[in-house]
Amino acid sequence: MKRGFGSDNHSGISPEILQAIADANTGHALAYGDDEWCQKTEELFRRYFGNQAKVYFVFNGTGANVLSIDLMCRSHEAVVCAETAHINVDECGAPQRVVGCRLLTVNTPDGKLTPDLVRTRLHGFGFEHHSQPKAISITQSTELGTLYTLDEIRALADLAHSHNMYLHMDGARLANAAVALGCSFREMTTDCGVDVLSFGGTKNGMLIGESVVVLNPELDVDVKYRRKQMTQLASKMRFVAAQFEAYLESGLWRRNAEHSNAMARKLEAEVKKIPGVEVIYPVQVNGVFAHLPREAWQQLQQEFFFYDWDFDRDQVRWMCSFDTTEEDIAAFAAALNKVMGNNK
Amino acid sequence: MKRGFGSDNHSGISPEILQAIADANTGHALAYGDDEWCQKTEELFRRYFGNQAKVYFVFNGTGANVLSIDLMCRSHEAVVCAETAHINVDECGAPQRVVGCRLLTVNTPDGKLTPDLVRTRLHGFGFEHHSQPKAISITQSTELGTLYTLDEIRALADLAHSHNMYLHMDGARLANAAVALGCSFREMTTDCGVDVLSFGGTKNGMLIGESVVVLNPELDVDVKYRRKQMTQLASKMRFVAAQFEAYLESGLWRRNAEHSNAMARKLEAEVKKIPGVEVIYPVQVNGVFAHLPREAWQQLQQEFFFYDWDFDRDQVRWMCSFDTTEEDIAAFAAALNKVMGNNK
Amino acid sequence: MKRGFGSDNHSGISPEILQAIADANTGHALAYGDDEWCQKTEELFRRYFGNQAKVYFVFNGTGANVLSIDLMCRSHEAVVCAETAHINVDECGAPQRVVGCRLLTVNTPDGKLTPDLVRTRLHGFGFEHHSQPKAISITQSTELGTLYTLDEIRALADLAHSHNMYLHMDGARLANAAVALGCSFREMTTDCGVDVLSFGGTKNGMLIGESVVVLNPELDVDVKYRRKQMTQLASKMRFVAAQFEAYLESGLWRRNAEHSNAMARKLEAEVKKIPGVEVIYPVQVNGVFAHLPREAWQQLQQEFFFYDWDFDRDQVRWMCSFDTTEEDIAAFAAALNKVMGNNK
Amino acid sequence: MKRGFGSDNHSGISPEILQAIADANTGHALAYGDDEWCQKTEELFRRYFGNQAKVYFVFNGTGANVLSIDLMCRSHEAVVCAETAHINVDECGAPQRVVGCRLLTVNTPDGKLTPDLVRTRLHGFGFEHHSQPKAISITQSTELGTLYTLDEIRALADLAHSHNMYLHMDGARLANAAVALGCSFREMTTDCGVDVLSFGGTKNGMLIGESVVVLNPELDVDVKYRRKQMTQLASKMRFVAAQFEAYLESGLWRRNAEHSNAMARKLEAEVKKIPGVEVIYPVQVNGVFAHLPREAWQQLQQEFFFYDWDFDRDQVRWMCSFDTTEEDIAAFAAALNKVMGNNK
Repeated sequence: MKRGFGSDNHSGISPEILQAIADANTGHALAYGDDEWCQKTEELFRRYFGNQAKVYFVFNGTGANVLSIDLMCRSHEAVVCAETAHINVDECGAPQRVVGCRLLTVNTPDGKLTPDLVRTRLHGFGFEHHSQPKAISITQSTELGTLYTLDEIRALADLAHSHNMYLHMDGARLANAAVALGCSFREMTTDCGVDVLSFGGTKNGMLIGESVVVLNPELDVDVKYRRKQMTQLASKMRFVAAQFEAYLESGLWRRNAEHSNAMARKLEAEVKKIPGVEVIYPVQVNGVFAHLPREAWQQLQQEFFFYDWDFDRDQVRWMCSFDTTEEDIAAFAAALNKVMGNNK
Repeated sequence: MKRGFGSDNHSGISPEILQAIADANTGHALAYGDDEWCQKTEELFRRYFGNQAKVYFVFNGTGANVLSIDLMCRSHEAVVCAETAHINVDECGAPQRVVGCRLLTVNTPDGKLTPDLVRTRLHGFGFEHHSQPKAISITQSTELGTLYTLDEIRALADLAHSHNMYLHMDGARLANAAVALGCSFREMTTDCGVDVLSFGGTKNGMLIGESVVVLNPELDVDVKYRRKQMTQLASKMRFVAAQFEAYLESGLWRRNAEHSNAMARKLEAEVKKIPGVEVIYPVQVNGVFAHLPREAWQQLQQEFFFYDWDFDRDQVRWMCSFDTTEEDIAAFAAALNKVMGNNK
Repeated sequence: MKRGFGSDNHSGISPEILQAIADANTGHALAYGDDEWCQKTEELFRRYFGNQAKVYFVFNGTGANVLSIDLMCRSHEAVVCAETAHINVDECGAPQRVVGCRLLTVNTPDGKLTPDLVRTRLHGFGFEHHSQPKAISITQSTELGTLYTLDEIRALADLAHSHNMYLHMDGARLANAAVALGCSFREMTTDCGVDVLSFGGTKNGMLIGESVVVLNPELDVDVKYRRKQMTQLASKMRFVAAQFEAYLESGLWRRNAEHSNAMARKLEAEVKKIPGVEVIYPVQVNGVFAHLPREAWQQLQQEFFFYDWDFDRDQVRWMCSFDTTEEDIAAFAAALNKVMGNNK
Repeated sequence: MKRGFGSDNHSGISPEILQAIADANTGHALAYGDDEWCQKTEELFRRYFGNQAKVYFVFNGTGANVLSIDLMCRSHEAVVCAETAHINVDECGAPQRVVGCRLLTVNTPDGKLTPDLVRTRLHGFGFEHHSQPKAISITQSTELGTLYTLDEIRALADLAHSHNMYLHMDGARLANAAVALGCSFREMTTDCGVDVLSFGGTKNGMLIGESVVVLNPELDVDVKYRRKQMTQLASKMRFVAAQFEAYLESGLWRRNAEHSNAMARKLEAEVKKIPGVEVIYPVQVNGVFAHLPREAWQQLQQEFFFYDWDFDRDQVRWMCSFDTTEEDIAAFAAALNKVMGNNK
């Protein structure tokens, strides 16, 4: 399939990742995480996130998010999140089924929670008829391609902790956020007070494999059983660890994220030149959200794959990935220009 | 780590599988199964299991088993299985948590259910205080390395269907069973009346990836939502499909299983020569279960990795895998001979 | 405790109900619903709701609502409801825990859904990442004391059915609604296309006991197991049935509801005379929602028990019950007048 | 219906209980447990079970058992119980659905666990593939009408605590046990080390209402939310509390239990005179289990209601209740004598 702008998980595997898998394919290793690759990579996570960090590998983002929620909340408790959060919209109710808890959603202008927005859901403490707010979950970078600053994250962590609650970060695109903010993973998570992190690699060049990074040791309780029971324990785990090792150690996370972010900026620049195309949110990482006439975007979809984001409002999403090229963008911009009727 | 006899998932990846992943790593593909590799491999499953077969890829055996159970049973229903079944012993309660149903276990001499054994749990139909028996689950080959004949499978399917119940087969080691019985997958499943199958590849040379094969179209309802909600939907699914394609198309499943079965027979022959070592179950596939003095097997574990199976009864399990060599067996037999005090 | 305006379940038991329990306390009866009282009362429900109606007694409103949802939805499906719905706000997440499904909430001006409001949540059909909308749930009368007309109910039922969805009615205060609308239970439920009903009596004079009335026979599947497994099966069920029999047969439901509705109208008339007290919603059944200065309502609470409804907006709720008297209202209005500073 | 020997919950309500409900039916009371009856009765429970005891009223035995399990175990943990335990056999899988945990069952000769029997299930600690044993559950008196001595209970509590586990007692028939052992509730529970108790009254003269008594303060965490979320919170709770107050304060529990136990002993004495009827278990409380020819017991069922206990083995159960009379027993024995062919 032609490279389009559908999703960063439409891309394949970075060559470095495939090589790391091949390199780990040597002899026998204990299953389920008791191997040298896992040990080395766990050490690496401590280096990246601080000594108290404990990583648990899982299969996918849904697994990482649900396990994270499960560590913070029991079923009578609740997670405050943006209405647009992946855990609310795109998990087919996995938190409800697997953890049994409620999500308390907040309408946001740009996919970002603020302390004031969160406070609108912080009531009913001690009242047995209401699910008890126990966690705040933010996505960094957000589902709308926007970013929390370090100060904004810290403010949410402080709010959470002052209410005996936890802060979860869904970091499916954490690398894109880190390079955009020019900060380390640790500065954006541990140092801001994040308690548990879903840390992903699949959208940025890995094959299969995500992780839950427990940053608050209070939450590091019975995690291995919880992971197993919710079906997220890999047997040949060395091959997940080896991917993360290559991802982190060689700086691949940074190279790939810098590239996809740069491509999105490039794309933004190109489409902004085209009359009638309106870019909706600030392009801070690797996605461009735009508004344009339905006829135009539907015609464009016949040539390039991408999703409408909000059909009724004629909003579309164009995602760049680690393998997007300048040629892809030039071709896309040209085609867009054409369907917008500017093709002379 | 030195090759031992701990488990068939201590082995790595067959080179053909790695190659297939690399070959699929080309350009973009729609995520979540809407790609050409998935389409081709789904066609292949129909070829192997019959035209009505519908395959759903998942991450691991727990996922395959829990999804299978979820398709057959609602929470107030129950699955009859052997006390030694993986779904009962080794899933940390995943069926209970994710499906919410009961398992009705039966004590068996050799890990195999029989119609008579199952009938002991078929009561209370229509009585609202009792979970309603709705499925029988068997493992082929069993957790004890034994096999059901085709007639035995058919008898259990008939029993299930005559009670408006379903038959599930946990085929984590289906390839080993097929080569041992000299039959096709289809003859052992569809043609015997199996309704839904957990079909695994990880223990026989694949990287990550198992599948649920729905053979009874009645059960093919809402499966995609159920898979997603229980956290078992892979984004870059083409790489799971590509593994299965290579596994099936090239006959890898057969070559690998024939080899590991042959190694187990070889191992059995060797250890039987050693006085004081008693092989407990018929060696029909790739595992040897033995009884020997504790001091001996604990000493042997310092050199070769393997698990005790029943500590109190001094029973151990030795598993062969697709990469076990004749030299491994010779070395192991020699070491065993030595710890048994026969080393002159 | 002095009679206040806290909730209609702060009242006790109607004498007719206690008498019915005493009358049923004769000899032995089969447990769990196999008794003559249950049979008679089931017949009565058919009379009141139509021949296809099937009643299942449960303990409380939470049980009735959760069982109703459980009959309509599997865990990957979702219920559209008002943000203010009891199932959303006041069940401590019971639907999420017990059924595992999502609620898709809609902000409403007056606690009432409309087809247009519901349609904003009817998307993502067939998309496995999204919980599938499968039911609409309305409360009659609503948590804000408002009412759906028969036409409005019919329109929501039609919308539901046209999307292969079901309509649930939470009828914890169904009697109050029926007398307000001057219609029969059947006209308001079965005849409008309601598929399943939570029908309550506790708030209107019963001791303990609510019910799920399955109006659409498609949903009458495995209900007895589902009820038992979610802990809602009473052993001495004759005493629940006997209460409902007395409630329905003697017209108690109507007398009690007419009285509490009349008291609420009276209360409304009285408080409207007091400057500074604003009645927020139309008083259609037995509750009055008002806005007044915080200092005033907090002072009033020292004499009469009632709840603030929205603390931040200084909204309070005053509920009348079957035993509220005209004297209660006069005393309350006088006290209110006084705290509002009008007491000369 | 004629009084039979089907179950102690086929009986009605003790007059003292009905009177207590009527007495509590005065004015308004806060709902959900914040009333004076609940306060007084909670104090009474502290008197009966010790100062640390905390009672939570629920609707029924299933609710009490599931809430108890929920306080002790998370979903990845497990409860060891007898195969015949009510929580295993007669809850339609409620613990599995609501708590999501496993039950580890043990075959027993007489419905009673022993430390040796329990130890057969205490393995796999720390192994993430296995549900972690976290509680032992015993029924006092057992489902087979047998009793644990105080020493036997203490031994199981010690075993539990030495493994960082809890001991639960299902006391649906606790009163019968206490009078049979001639001990207080406290001696049989708190003083023996029981951590949490399901304490029932329905089978011994109450209308509706059971309770969870938390004896180990470690387990008194978030109980009110857990109760609400699993649908077991009563609104007019004063009427449950008032029943328990009358039950305990007036010695009704003792009078009723002494009577039903005495009737069972009488019944045992009578049936033992009849050739061909074999009493299977020691008659220690209010049930008689017997073996006799199928034709005979089926014929007897046409006159008196009772259940077969094990159809295939021709075992039946005859339960006495607080309202069983000597005449009932004489008539039953005469009828039994007749169907056994001894009627000349």
